[in-house]
Amino acid sequence: MSSHARSGKPRRISESTIRRLSIYYRALARLEEEGYATVSSKELALREKLTPAQVRKDLSFFGSFGTRGLGYPVGELKSKVAAILGIDRSWNVALVGVGNIGSALVSYKEFQKQGFVIRKVFDNDQRKIGSNHKGIVVSDVADLEADLKQSEIEIVVIAVPSHAAQEVADRCVQAGIKAFLNFAPVNLKVPDDVCLRTENMSMELEYLSFSRVNQNRFGNPMADG
Amino acid sequence: MSSHARSGKPRRISESTIRRLSIYYRALARLEEEGYATVSSKELALREKLTPAQVRKDLSFFGSFGTRGLGYPVGELKSKVAAILGIDRSWNVALVGVGNIGSALVSYKEFQKQGFVIRKVFDNDQRKIGSNHKGIVVSDVADLEADLKQSEIEIVVIAVPSHAAQEVADRCVQAGIKAFLNFAPVNLKVPDDVCLRTENMSMELEYLSFSRVNQNRFGNPMADG
Repeated sequence: MSSHARSGKPRRISESTIRRLSIYYRALARLEEEGYATVSSKELALREKLTPAQVRKDLSFFGSFGTRGLGYPVGELKSKVAAILGIDRSWNVALVGVGNIGSALVSYKEFQKQGFVIRKVFDNDQRKIGSNHKGIVVSDVADLEADLKQSEIEIVVIAVPSHAAQEVADRCVQAGIKAFLNFAPVNLKVPDDVCLRTENMSMELEYLSFSRVNQNRFGNPMADG
Repeated sequence: MSSHARSGKPRRISESTIRRLSIYYRALARLEEEGYATVSSKELALREKLTPAQVRKDLSFFGSFGTRGLGYPVGELKSKVAAILGIDRSWNVALVGVGNIGSALVSYKEFQKQGFVIRKVFDNDQRKIGSNHKGIVVSDVADLEADLKQSEIEIVVIAVPSHAAQEVADRCVQAGIKAFLNFAPVNLKVPDDVCLRTENMSMELEYLSFSRVNQNRFGNPMADG
């Protein structure tokens, strides 16, 4: 337990810290595959282009791992990071919208690998409903609320056209969903206790165009926000 | 010109700042569509769940916009943000790998809308090469280097399987490419002067699982890193 948790004061964790935890998790999984038993903050930092101080700070936040001079035990640290990220268990995921992006996501193996299991797939296209989509039968979005509850869905991935995304989100919120990954390029409104991530791939390209245009003017942007 | 640029000292811009610029751009585009001539930092902050101080700080960094009491002129600010992001022009993009994700990206309309035009599509599958993929004929990845140069490609999107991604990146770097968006779930190594973004959709889900698991312990994570 961290000192913050002990003191009873909730503290906000930044988006960048959470992202770095995901990065540490992947680095540790690779180190484990490569047969390493321990890793120093310096080695971990070097692999991920971070500073050792940043690594130590991030990990110390969640409790004290590692022994000075000996480094962190790889397997134990990986398990702890997994528990912090909530991926030491599996999650029931539903996908709404089986268009180009949705269809690609159904076969995106990384989701399942990290414990995010797509249990239900919804669409409003009568030609798709009832058809088997890579092992999952497409359900009618008309039954969304009932099906989400029955399948104990915890996370919904929205991959419908922009104009339909807010209505889908609203209906899922009504059905008790508290976590969304949205691929529609719109700003969805959700209650404060609901966690929403919007995946906007053109924003990633804007990061690149920014870097190309401003490389000499501002220096290369940092990976660490 | 900002005071930083004037002083001649390059300053690093954080990843979060660049992301917020993309968000401001979209908010301003919407405000313009809705017929607004001006917007205050407070209104802009409210729309995007940021603080007015953050908005003012971000925008002041790039020069002084807006008049106290009158707010920012929407159209002018939008144009300036577009110029900063490098999306006041179009970019020649190539996509390598026409599998599930790659195929979805070819039809992802947001890219073209923001000026990222997919000019070339490559694959190594003989059944796909030469076929017309949503208006673009699939080229043989064997001709990658020559084709990238001939088509004056500036950004490459990598959507090949993990085991092939590093080789594709290396060949593109050899051909002079300085900007990559990578969808393969691996850590690619590129030279320091090359900008690489890795889109890892399972990391976005980990952000959600973290939030669900830690909601009470650490509070809801902030959108601002």
